[in-house]
Amino acid sequence: MRLATHRLGDGTVATVDVGDGARCTDAASVDELLRREDWRAAARRAADEGAPLPSSARPLAPILAPGKVLCCGLNFRAHIEEMGRGVPAVPTFFAKWADTLVGPDADVALSAGDTEKLDWEAELAVVVGADLRRASVAECAAAIAGYTVSNDVSLRDRQWATTQWLSGKSWDATTPIGPVVVTADAFDPVEHTVTCRVDGESVQHAPLDDLLFPPAELLHHASRFTRLRPGDLVLTGTPAGVGAGRDPQRFLTDGQVLETEISGIGLLRNTIRISS
Amino acid sequence: MRLATHRLGDGTVATVDVGDGARCTDAASVDELLRREDWRAAARRAADEGAPLPSSARPLAPILAPGKVLCCGLNFRAHIEEMGRGVPAVPTFFAKWADTLVGPDADVALSAGDTEKLDWEAELAVVVGADLRRASVAECAAAIAGYTVSNDVSLRDRQWATTQWLSGKSWDATTPIGPVVVTADAFDPVEHTVTCRVDGESVQHAPLDDLLFPPAELLHHASRFTRLRPGDLVLTGTPAGVGAGRDPQRFLTDGQVLETEISGIGLLRNTIRISS
Repeated sequence: MRLATHRLGDGTVATVDVGDGARCTDAASVDELLRREDWRAAARRAADEGAPLPSSARPLAPILAPGKVLCCGLNFRAHIEEMGRGVPAVPTFFAKWADTLVGPDADVALSAGDTEKLDWEAELAVVVGADLRRASVAECAAAIAGYTVSNDVSLRDRQWATTQWLSGKSWDATTPIGPVVVTADAFDPVEHTVTCRVDGESVQHAPLDDLLFPPAELLHHASRFTRLRPGDLVLTGTPAGVGAGRDPQRFLTDGQVLETEISGIGLLRNTIRISS
Repeated sequence: MRLATHRLGDGTVATVDVGDGARCTDAASVDELLRREDWRAAARRAADEGAPLPSSARPLAPILAPGKVLCCGLNFRAHIEEMGRGVPAVPTFFAKWADTLVGPDADVALSAGDTEKLDWEAELAVVVGADLRRASVAECAAAIAGYTVSNDVSLRDRQWATTQWLSGKSWDATTPIGPVVVTADAFDPVEHTVTCRVDGESVQHAPLDDLLFPPAELLHHASRFTRLRPGDLVLTGTPAGVGAGRDPQRFLTDGQVLETEISGIGLLRNTIRISS
Protein backbone atom coordinates (compact mmCIF):
# COMPACT_ATOMS: atom_id res chain seq x y z
CA MET A 1 0.00 0.00 0.00
CA ARG A 2 0.97 3.61 -0.61
CA LEU A 3 -0.11 5.88 2.27
CA ALA A 4 -0.03 9.67 2.31
CA THR A 5 -1.25 12.64 4.34
CA HIS A 6 -3.16 15.42 2.58
CA ARG A 7 -4.47 18.84 3.48
CA LEU A 8 -8.28 18.62 3.31
CA GLY A 9 -10.23 21.80 4.07
CA ASP A 10 -9.08 23.05 7.47
CA GLY A 11 -7.79 19.67 8.49
CA THR A 12 -5.57 16.85 7.32
CA VAL A 13 -6.32 13.26 6.36
CA ALA A 14 -4.39 10.03 5.86
CA THR A 15 -5.07 8.59 2.42
CA VAL A 16 -4.52 5.35 0.54
CA ASP A 17 -3.47 5.37 -3.11
CA VAL A 18 -5.85 3.30 -5.25
CA GLY A 19 -4.16 3.84 -8.61
CA ASP A 20 -6.55 6.32 -10.20
CA GLY A 21 -6.66 8.57 -7.11
CA ALA A 22 -6.68 8.21 -3.36
CA ARG A 23 -9.26 7.31 -0.74
CA CYS A 24 -9.58 8.88 2.70
CA THR A 25 -9.09 7.02 5.96
CA ASP A 26 -10.57 8.37 9.20
CA ALA A 27 -7.08 9.17 10.57
CA ALA A 28 -5.61 12.67 10.34
CA SER A 29 -2.13 11.53 9.28
CA VAL A 30 -0.17 8.39 8.47
CA ASP A 31 1.53 8.54 11.87
CA GLU A 32 -1.86 8.73 13.61
CA LEU A 33 -3.03 5.75 11.50
CA LEU A 34 0.07 3.73 12.45
CA ARG A 35 -0.65 4.23 16.16
CA ARG A 36 -3.73 1.98 15.72
CA GLU A 37 -3.07 -1.70 16.16
CA ASP A 38 -5.36 -2.54 13.23
CA TRP A 39 -3.85 0.06 10.88
CA ARG A 40 -3.40 -2.38 7.99
CA ALA A 41 -7.04 -3.43 8.08
CA ALA A 42 -8.17 0.19 8.45
CA ALA A 43 -6.12 1.23 5.42
CA ARG A 44 -7.43 -1.68 3.33
CA ARG A 45 -10.99 -0.81 4.34
CA ALA A 46 -10.42 2.82 3.32
CA ALA A 47 -9.07 1.69 -0.05
CA ASP A 48 -12.35 -0.18 -0.63
CA GLU A 49 -14.89 2.06 1.05
CA GLY A 50 -13.23 5.41 1.85
CA ALA A 51 -14.39 8.71 0.34
CA PRO A 52 -12.42 9.71 -2.77
CA LEU A 53 -9.83 12.42 -2.09
CA PRO A 54 -10.49 15.58 -4.15
CA SER A 55 -7.78 15.80 -6.82
CA SER A 56 -7.04 19.37 -5.66
CA ALA A 57 -5.93 18.17 -2.20
CA ARG A 58 -2.32 19.04 -1.51
CA PRO A 59 0.14 16.45 -0.19
CA LEU A 60 1.78 17.09 3.17
CA ALA A 61 4.60 15.34 4.97
CA PRO A 62 3.02 11.88 5.40
CA ILE A 63 4.33 11.73 8.98
CA LEU A 64 3.20 14.95 10.69
CA ALA A 65 3.99 14.46 14.38
CA PRO A 66 6.50 11.69 15.01
CA GLY A 67 7.58 11.33 18.61
CA LYS A 68 11.15 10.83 17.42
CA VAL A 69 13.07 11.55 14.25
CA LEU A 70 16.32 9.66 14.54
CA CYS A 71 19.02 10.10 11.91
CA CYS A 72 22.09 8.12 11.02
CA GLY A 73 25.11 9.95 9.65
CA LEU A 74 27.89 8.20 7.74
CA ASN A 75 26.11 5.08 6.51
CA PHE A 76 27.42 4.85 2.91
CA ARG A 77 31.11 4.02 2.45
CA ALA A 78 31.67 6.54 -0.37
CA HIS A 79 30.05 9.34 1.66
CA ILE A 80 32.18 8.44 4.71
CA GLU A 81 35.25 8.82 2.48
CA GLU A 82 34.17 12.16 1.00
CA MET A 83 33.60 13.52 4.53
CA GLY A 84 37.06 12.29 5.58
CA ARG A 85 35.79 9.95 8.31
CA GLY A 86 36.66 6.40 9.29
CA VAL A 87 34.23 3.47 8.95
CA PRO A 88 32.26 3.36 12.24
CA ALA A 89 31.67 0.26 14.38
CA VAL A 90 28.26 1.56 15.48
CA PRO A 91 25.83 3.96 13.80
CA THR A 92 26.41 7.69 14.28
CA PHE A 93 22.99 8.75 15.55
CA PHE A 94 21.67 12.27 15.92
CA ALA A 95 18.19 13.67 16.53
CA LYS A 96 15.77 15.93 14.76
CA TRP A 97 12.42 17.16 15.99
CA ALA A 98 9.11 16.96 14.12
CA ASP A 99 9.34 20.74 13.49
CA THR A 100 12.05 20.06 10.90
CA LEU A 101 9.67 18.18 8.59
CA VAL A 102 8.04 19.70 5.51
CA GLY A 103 5.99 18.24 2.68
CA PRO A 104 7.03 16.83 -0.69
CA ASP A 105 6.38 20.07 -2.61
CA ALA A 106 6.96 22.64 0.14
CA ASP A 107 9.52 25.40 -0.11
CA VAL A 108 12.61 25.09 2.08
CA ALA A 109 12.60 28.66 3.37
CA LEU A 110 15.43 30.37 5.23
CA SER A 111 16.53 33.92 5.90
CA ALA A 112 19.70 35.46 4.53
CA GLY A 113 22.26 35.15 7.30
CA ASP A 114 20.98 31.76 8.48
CA THR A 115 23.61 29.94 6.45
CA GLU A 116 26.16 30.29 3.68
CA LYS A 117 26.41 26.52 3.22
CA LEU A 118 23.03 24.91 2.56
CA ASP A 119 23.59 21.34 1.43
CA TRP A 120 21.54 18.35 0.25
CA GLU A 121 21.41 14.81 1.67
CA ALA A 122 18.98 12.48 -0.13
CA GLU A 123 17.98 9.60 2.16
CA LEU A 124 15.73 6.61 2.59
CA ALA A 125 13.58 7.05 5.72
CA VAL A 126 12.18 4.12 7.68
CA VAL A 127 8.75 4.46 9.31
CA VAL A 128 8.38 2.52 12.55
CA GLY A 129 5.19 0.49 13.00
CA ALA A 130 5.49 -1.03 16.47
CA ASP A 131 7.04 -0.45 19.89
CA LEU A 132 10.72 -1.40 19.98
CA ARG A 133 13.05 -1.39 22.98
CA ARG A 134 16.14 -3.61 23.23
CA ALA A 135 14.76 -5.43 20.20
CA SER A 136 16.54 -8.01 18.03
CA VAL A 137 17.29 -7.35 14.35
CA ALA A 138 14.46 -9.78 13.45
CA GLU A 139 11.99 -8.00 15.72
CA CYS A 140 13.04 -4.69 14.18
CA ALA A 141 12.62 -6.02 10.64
CA ALA A 142 9.08 -7.12 11.49
CA ALA A 143 8.30 -3.72 13.03
CA ILE A 144 9.05 -1.64 9.92
CA ALA A 145 5.73 -0.19 8.72
CA GLY A 146 7.18 1.23 5.52
CA TYR A 147 9.54 3.59 3.79
CA THR A 148 9.50 7.15 2.54
CA VAL A 149 11.85 9.61 0.81
CA SER A 150 13.63 12.34 2.79
CA ASN A 151 16.25 15.00 2.29
CA ASP A 152 18.29 15.76 5.41
CA VAL A 153 18.99 19.32 4.17
CA SER A 154 21.90 20.61 6.27
CA LEU A 155 23.25 24.05 7.16
CA ARG A 156 26.92 23.01 7.11
CA ASP A 157 28.27 26.15 8.80
CA ARG A 158 25.79 25.66 11.66
CA GLN A 159 26.37 21.90 11.73
CA TRP A 160 30.12 22.34 12.11
CA ALA A 161 30.17 25.44 14.36
CA THR A 162 30.44 23.05 17.34
CA THR A 163 31.11 19.32 17.68
CA GLN A 164 27.39 18.56 17.78
CA TRP A 165 25.44 18.73 14.53
CA LEU A 166 21.99 19.54 15.98
CA SER A 167 21.54 23.19 15.02
CA GLY A 168 22.59 22.56 11.41
CA LYS A 169 20.40 19.47 11.12
CA SER A 170 17.29 20.35 13.13
CA TRP A 171 16.61 23.80 11.69
CA ASP A 172 12.82 24.07 11.59
CA ALA A 173 11.09 23.26 8.29
CA THR A 174 14.15 22.15 6.33
CA THR A 175 13.64 18.37 6.00
CA PRO A 176 11.29 17.38 3.16
CA ILE A 177 9.69 13.93 3.41
CA GLY A 178 7.15 12.03 1.33
CA PRO A 179 5.35 11.92 -0.98
CA VAL A 180 4.07 8.56 0.32
CA VAL A 181 4.91 5.84 2.79
CA VAL A 182 5.16 2.57 0.87
CA THR A 183 4.41 -0.31 3.21
CA ALA A 184 7.22 -2.77 3.83
CA ASP A 185 5.46 -5.64 2.03
CA ALA A 186 5.59 -3.60 -1.18
CA PHE A 187 9.14 -2.19 -1.05
CA ASP A 188 12.52 -3.81 -0.56
CA PRO A 189 15.26 -1.16 -0.28
CA VAL A 190 17.99 -3.36 -1.74
CA GLU A 191 16.20 -3.35 -5.10
CA HIS A 192 16.07 0.43 -5.35
CA THR A 193 18.14 3.58 -5.79
CA VAL A 194 18.17 7.04 -4.28
CA THR A 195 18.80 10.11 -6.45
CA CYS A 196 19.20 13.82 -5.73
CA ARG A 197 19.01 16.52 -8.41
CA VAL A 198 19.64 20.26 -8.21
CA ASP A 199 17.92 22.20 -11.00
CA GLY A 200 17.69 18.95 -12.93
CA GLU A 201 21.35 17.97 -12.58
CA SER A 202 21.98 14.67 -10.83
CA VAL A 203 24.22 15.22 -7.78
CA GLN A 204 23.66 11.98 -5.86
CA HIS A 205 22.74 8.55 -7.17
CA ALA A 206 23.29 5.30 -5.30
CA PRO A 207 21.81 1.85 -4.81
CA LEU A 208 20.20 1.34 -1.40
CA ASP A 209 21.92 -2.03 -1.00
CA ASP A 210 25.11 -0.18 -0.06
CA LEU A 211 24.05 0.82 3.48
CA LEU A 212 26.64 -0.05 6.12
CA PHE A 213 23.79 -0.47 8.66
CA PRO A 214 20.60 -1.60 6.85
CA PRO A 215 17.22 -0.45 8.23
CA ALA A 216 16.56 -3.29 10.69
CA GLU A 217 20.11 -3.06 12.07
CA LEU A 218 19.71 0.69 12.57
CA LEU A 219 16.48 0.14 14.51
CA HIS A 220 18.19 -2.58 16.55
CA HIS A 221 21.02 -0.23 17.55
CA ALA A 222 18.58 2.64 18.27
CA SER A 223 16.23 0.52 20.34
CA ARG A 224 19.15 -0.34 22.58
CA PHE A 225 19.03 3.17 24.05
CA THR A 226 15.55 4.50 23.36
CA ARG A 227 12.04 3.20 22.78
CA LEU A 228 10.81 3.57 19.20
CA ARG A 229 7.09 3.80 18.64
CA PRO A 230 4.64 3.71 15.70
CA GLY A 231 5.08 6.79 13.54
CA ASP A 232 8.69 7.39 14.51
CA LEU A 233 11.05 8.10 11.62
CA VAL A 234 14.60 6.86 11.13
CA LEU A 235 16.61 8.57 8.39
CA THR A 236 19.18 6.09 7.19
CA GLY A 237 22.03 8.31 5.92
CA THR A 238 23.03 9.83 2.61
CA PRO A 239 25.29 8.50 -0.19
CA ALA A 240 28.26 10.32 -1.73
CA GLY A 241 27.78 13.51 -3.71
CA VAL A 242 26.88 16.14 -1.13
CA GLY A 243 27.92 19.72 -1.89
CA ALA A 244 30.38 19.93 1.02
CA GLY A 245 32.24 16.86 -0.26
CA ARG A 246 32.92 18.39 -3.71
CA ASP A 247 36.01 20.22 -4.92
CA PRO A 248 35.18 23.04 -5.12
CA GLN A 249 32.38 22.86 -2.57
CA ARG A 250 28.94 23.77 -3.84
CA PHE A 251 25.82 24.85 -1.94
CA LEU A 252 22.13 25.54 -2.56
CA THR A 253 21.00 29.06 -3.47
CA ASP A 254 17.72 30.96 -3.59
CA GLY A 255 15.34 29.67 -6.26
CA GLN A 256 17.05 26.35 -6.90
CA VAL A 257 14.85 23.28 -7.19
CA LEU A 258 15.90 20.31 -5.09
CA GLU A 259 14.57 16.95 -6.24
CA THR A 260 14.91 13.81 -4.17
CA GLU A 261 13.74 10.50 -5.58
CA ILE A 262 13.69 6.86 -4.58
CA SER A 263 12.61 4.40 -7.25
CA GLY A 264 9.48 2.58 -6.11
CA ILE A 265 8.46 5.34 -3.68
CA GLY A 266 8.37 8.70 -5.46
CA LEU A 267 9.72 12.20 -5.81
CA LEU A 268 10.14 15.26 -3.57
CA ARG A 269 10.41 18.58 -5.40
CA ASN A 270 11.29 21.48 -3.09
CA THR A 271 12.28 25.01 -3.99
CA ILE A 272 14.92 26.77 -1.93
CA ARG A 273 13.79 30.23 -0.75
CA ILE A 274 16.27 32.53 0.96
CA SER A 275 14.56 35.76 2.01
CA SER A 276 16.66 38.85 2.55
CA MET B 1 5.58 29.68 43.23
CA ARG B 2 6.90 26.14 43.50
CA LEU B 3 5.14 23.80 41.06
CA ALA B 4 5.43 20.03 40.94
CA THR B 5 3.84 16.96 39.36
CA HIS B 6 2.71 14.10 41.56
CA ARG B 7 1.36 10.59 41.08
CA LEU B 8 -2.25 10.61 42.36
CA GLY B 9 -4.14 7.33 42.18
CA ASP B 10 -3.97 6.09 38.60
CA GLY B 11 -3.20 9.54 37.24
CA THR B 12 -0.92 12.49 37.74
CA VAL B 13 -1.55 16.04 38.91
CA ALA B 14 0.25 19.37 38.83
CA THR B 15 0.53 20.80 42.34
CA VAL B 16 1.43 24.09 44.01
CA ASP B 17 3.51 24.13 47.18
CA VAL B 18 1.75 26.09 49.93
CA GLY B 19 4.38 25.68 52.66
CA ASP B 20 2.69 23.08 54.85
CA GLY B 21 1.83 20.82 51.92
CA ALA B 22 0.67 21.13 48.33
CA ARG B 23 -2.61 21.86 46.60
CA CYS B 24 -3.84 20.26 43.40
CA THR B 25 -4.44 22.10 40.13
CA ASP B 26 -6.71 20.64 37.45
CA ALA B 27 -3.74 20.05 35.11
CA ALA B 28 -2.08 16.64 34.88
CA SER B 29 1.49 17.98 34.89
CA VAL B 30 3.43 21.24 35.11
CA ASP B 31 4.06 21.17 31.36
CA GLU B 32 0.34 20.75 30.69
CA LEU B 33 -0.33 23.68 33.07
CA LEU B 34 2.23 25.87 31.27
CA ARG B 35 0.49 25.29 27.94
CA ARG B 36 -2.46 27.34 29.28
CA GLU B 37 -2.13 31.06 28.72
CA ASP B 38 -3.53 31.79 32.21
CA TRP B 39 -1.26 29.30 33.97
CA ARG B 40 -0.12 31.78 36.61
CA ALA B 41 -3.71 32.63 37.62
CA ALA B 42 -4.68 28.95 37.54
CA ALA B 43 -1.76 28.07 39.84
CA ARG B 44 -2.57 30.91 42.26
CA ARG B 45 -6.22 29.82 42.32
CA ALA B 46 -5.16 26.24 43.08
CA ALA B 47 -2.96 27.49 45.93
CA ASP B 48 -6.03 29.16 47.46
CA GLU B 49 -8.81 26.76 46.58
CA GLY B 50 -7.28 23.51 45.31
CA ALA B 51 -7.74 20.17 47.05
CA PRO B 52 -4.89 19.32 49.44
CA LEU B 53 -2.46 16.76 48.01
CA PRO B 54 -2.31 13.60 50.16
CA SER B 55 1.06 13.54 51.91
CA SER B 56 1.63 10.03 50.57
CA ALA B 57 1.58 11.26 46.94
CA ARG B 58 4.88 10.58 45.20
CA PRO B 59 6.72 13.30 43.24
CA LEU B 60 7.35 12.70 39.54
CA ALA B 61 9.40 14.60 37.00
CA PRO B 62 7.57 17.97 37.08
CA ILE B 63 7.76 18.16 33.28
CA LEU B 64 6.38 14.87 31.95
CA ALA B 65 6.04 15.36 28.19
CA PRO B 66 8.08 18.28 26.87
CA GLY B 67 8.05 18.64 23.11
CA LYS B 68 11.77 19.35 23.22
CA VAL B 69 14.57 18.79 25.68
CA LEU B 70 17.49 20.85 24.47
CA CYS B 71 20.84 20.58 26.20
CA CYS B 72 23.94 22.73 26.18
CA GLY B 73 27.33 21.11 26.60
CA LEU B 74 30.46 23.00 27.61
CA ASN B 75 28.92 26.04 29.34
CA PHE B 76 31.21 26.38 32.40
CA ARG B 77 34.82 27.41 31.80
CA ALA B 78 36.33 24.96 34.28
CA HIS B 79 34.34 22.04 32.78
CA ILE B 80 35.45 23.03 29.27
CA GLU B 81 39.05 22.85 30.50
CA GLU B 82 38.64 19.47 32.22
CA MET B 83 37.16 18.03 28.99
CA GLY B 84 40.08 19.43 26.99
CA ARG B 85 37.93 21.67 24.77
CA GLY B 86 38.27 25.27 23.60
CA VAL B 87 35.90 28.06 24.65
CA PRO B 88 33.04 28.03 22.08
CA ALA B 89 31.66 31.08 20.24
CA VAL B 90 28.16 29.58 20.16
CA PRO B 91 26.46 27.06 22.46
CA THR B 92 27.08 23.37 21.80
CA PHE B 93 23.50 22.11 21.57
CA PHE B 94 22.33 18.53 21.57
CA ALA B 95 18.92 16.94 21.99
CA LYS B 96 17.25 14.56 24.37
CA TRP B 97 13.76 13.13 24.16
CA ALA B 98 11.14 13.14 26.92
CA ASP B 99 11.75 9.41 27.43
CA THR B 100 15.05 10.26 29.12
CA LEU B 101 13.37 12.02 32.04
CA VAL B 102 12.79 10.43 35.45
CA GLY B 103 11.57 11.81 38.76
CA PRO B 104 13.46 13.29 41.68
CA ASP B 105 13.60 10.04 43.69
CA ALA B 106 13.49 7.48 40.87
CA ASP B 107 16.17 4.87 40.34
CA VAL B 108 18.44 5.33 37.34
CA ALA B 109 18.26 1.76 36.09
CA LEU B 110 20.53 0.19 33.47
CA SER B 111 21.59 -3.29 32.48
CA ALA B 112 25.11 -4.64 32.86
CA GLY B 113 26.71 -4.21 29.45
CA ASP B 114 24.96 -0.91 28.74
CA THR B 115 27.96 1.08 29.94
CA GLU B 116 31.23 0.88 31.83
CA LYS B 117 31.39 4.67 32.23
CA LEU B 118 28.25 6.09 33.86
CA ASP B 119 28.91 9.70 34.81
CA TRP B 120 27.13 12.59 36.54
CA GLU B 121 26.39 16.10 35.25
CA ALA B 122 24.47 18.30 37.70
CA GLU B 123 22.69 21.10 35.83
CA LEU B 124 20.24 23.96 36.10
CA ALA B 125 17.29 23.37 33.74
CA VAL B 126 15.22 26.20 32.30
CA VAL B 127 11.49 25.65 31.75
CA VAL B 128 10.07 27.53 28.77
CA GLY B 129 6.77 29.38 29.29
CA ALA B 130 5.97 30.89 25.88
CA ASP B 131 6.47 30.36 22.16
CA LEU B 132 9.92 31.51 20.99
CA ARG B 133 11.28 31.62 17.44
CA ARG B 134 14.02 34.00 16.33
CA ALA B 135 13.49 35.76 19.65
CA SER B 136 15.66 38.45 21.22
CA VAL B 137 17.49 37.88 24.51
CA ALA B 138 14.93 40.15 26.23
CA GLU B 139 12.00 38.21 24.76
CA CYS B 140 13.64 34.99 25.91
CA ALA B 141 14.20 36.32 29.42
CA ALA B 142 10.50 37.21 29.65
CA ALA B 143 9.51 33.75 28.38
CA ILE B 144 11.25 31.76 31.11
CA ALA B 145 8.52 30.13 33.21
CA GLY B 146 10.90 28.82 35.84
CA TYR B 147 13.80 26.61 36.78
CA THR B 148 14.33 23.07 37.97
CA VAL B 149 17.21 20.76 38.90
CA SER B 150 18.50 18.12 36.48
CA ASN B 151 21.28 15.62 36.16
CA ASP B 152 22.38 14.93 32.59
CA VAL B 153 23.61 11.44 33.54
CA SER B 154 25.84 10.30 30.67
CA LEU B 155 27.07 6.93 29.41
CA ARG B 156 30.53 8.17 28.38
CA ASP B 157 31.50 5.11 26.35
CA ARG B 158 28.28 5.42 24.33
CA GLN B 159 28.59 9.20 24.13
CA TRP B 160 32.08 8.97 22.67
CA ALA B 161 31.65 5.87 20.47
CA THR B 162 30.90 8.24 17.56
CA THR B 163 31.24 12.00 17.07
CA GLN B 164 27.60 12.56 18.06
CA TRP B 165 26.70 12.31 21.75
CA LEU B 166 23.03 11.30 21.36
CA SER B 167 23.08 7.63 22.38
CA GLY B 168 25.12 8.35 25.53
CA LYS B 169 22.94 11.31 26.48
CA SER B 170 19.42 10.23 25.45
CA TRP B 171 19.39 6.78 27.00
CA ASP B 172 15.82 6.27 28.20
CA ALA B 173 15.08 7.03 31.87
CA THR B 174 18.52 8.31 32.87
CA THR B 175 17.92 12.07 33.36
CA PRO B 176 16.45 12.94 36.78
CA ILE B 177 14.65 16.29 37.03
CA GLY B 178 12.69 18.06 39.77
CA PRO B 179 11.66 18.10 42.52
CA VAL B 180 9.87 21.37 41.68
CA VAL B 181 9.79 24.11 39.08
CA VAL B 182 10.42 27.41 40.88
CA THR B 183 8.85 30.23 38.87
CA ALA B 184 11.22 32.84 37.47
CA ASP B 185 9.89 35.62 39.74
CA ALA B 186 11.07 33.61 42.76
CA PHE B 187 14.51 32.42 41.58
CA ASP B 188 17.51 34.22 40.15
CA PRO B 189 20.17 31.71 39.05
CA VAL B 190 23.11 34.07 39.69
CA GLU B 191 22.36 33.99 43.43
CA HIS B 192 22.53 30.21 43.66
CA THR B 193 24.82 27.20 43.45
CA VAL B 194 24.59 23.71 41.98
CA THR B 195 25.99 20.71 43.83
CA CYS B 196 26.39 17.03 43.00
CA ARG B 197 27.14 14.34 45.58
CA VAL B 198 27.89 10.63 45.19
CA ASP B 199 27.16 8.62 48.36
CA GLY B 200 27.32 11.88 50.28
CA GLU B 201 30.69 13.06 48.90
CA SER B 202 30.59 16.36 47.05
CA VAL B 203 31.86 15.92 43.48
CA GLN B 204 30.58 19.11 41.83
CA HIS B 205 29.90 22.49 43.38
CA ALA B 206 29.70 25.77 41.46
CA PRO B 207 27.95 29.12 41.46
CA LEU B 208 25.38 29.52 38.67
CA ASP B 209 26.73 32.98 37.80
CA ASP B 210 29.59 31.28 35.96
CA LEU B 211 27.61 30.19 32.88
CA LEU B 212 29.27 31.19 29.60
CA PHE B 213 25.78 31.44 28.01
CA PRO B 214 23.19 32.39 30.68
CA PRO B 215 19.61 31.05 30.35
CA ALA B 216 18.10 33.83 28.20
CA GLU B 217 21.10 33.78 25.83
CA LEU B 218 20.80 30.01 25.44
CA LEU B 219 17.11 30.36 24.54
CA HIS B 220 17.99 33.15 22.10
CA HIS B 221 20.53 30.96 20.30
CA ALA B 222 18.15 27.96 20.31
CA SER B 223 15.17 29.93 19.03
CA ARG B 224 17.26 30.90 16.03
CA PHE B 225 16.94 27.39 14.66
CA THR B 226 13.88 25.86 16.32
CA ARG B 227 10.62 26.96 17.90
CA LEU B 228 10.52 26.57 21.66
CA ARG B 229 7.14 26.13 23.31
CA PRO B 230 5.65 26.09 26.83
CA GLY B 231 6.86 23.07 28.74
CA ASP B 232 10.08 22.67 26.76
CA LEU B 233 13.21 22.12 28.82
CA VAL B 234 16.67 23.56 28.26
CA LEU B 235 19.49 22.00 30.29
CA THR B 236 22.17 24.63 30.71
CA GLY B 237 25.37 22.60 31.07
CA THR B 238 27.38 21.16 33.93
CA PRO B 239 30.28 22.62 35.96
CA ALA B 240 33.66 21.00 36.56
CA GLY B 241 33.97 17.80 38.55
CA VAL B 242 32.50 15.09 36.33
CA GLY B 243 33.92 11.60 36.71
CA ALA B 244 35.43 11.49 33.22
CA GLY B 245 37.42 14.67 33.94
CA ARG B 246 39.16 13.22 37.01
CA ASP B 247 42.55 11.56 37.28
CA PRO B 248 41.98 8.70 37.67
CA GLN B 249 38.55 8.71 36.07
CA ARG B 250 35.68 7.62 38.27
CA PHE B 251 32.23 6.34 37.34
CA LEU B 252 28.92 5.47 39.01
CA THR B 253 28.31 1.90 40.19
CA ASP B 254 25.33 -0.18 41.26
CA GLY B 255 23.76 0.98 44.49
CA GLN B 256 25.40 4.40 44.64
CA VAL B 257 23.20 7.34 45.58
CA LEU B 258 23.43 10.35 43.30
CA GLU B 259 22.29 13.63 44.83
CA THR B 260 21.83 16.78 42.75
CA GLU B 261 20.94 20.03 44.48
CA ILE B 262 20.40 23.65 43.55
CA SER B 263 20.00 26.08 46.45
CA GLY B 264 16.57 27.70 46.29
CA ILE B 265 15.06 24.87 44.24
CA GLY B 266 15.66 21.53 45.92
CA LEU B 267 17.26 18.11 45.85
CA LEU B 268 17.18 15.07 43.57
CA ARG B 269 18.16 11.76 45.20
CA ASN B 270 18.48 8.91 42.71
CA THR B 271 19.90 5.45 43.26
CA ILE B 272 21.93 3.81 40.51
CA ARG B 273 20.71 0.29 39.68
CA ILE B 274 22.71 -1.88 37.32
CA SER B 275 20.95 -5.22 36.77
CA SER B 276 22.97 -8.20 35.62
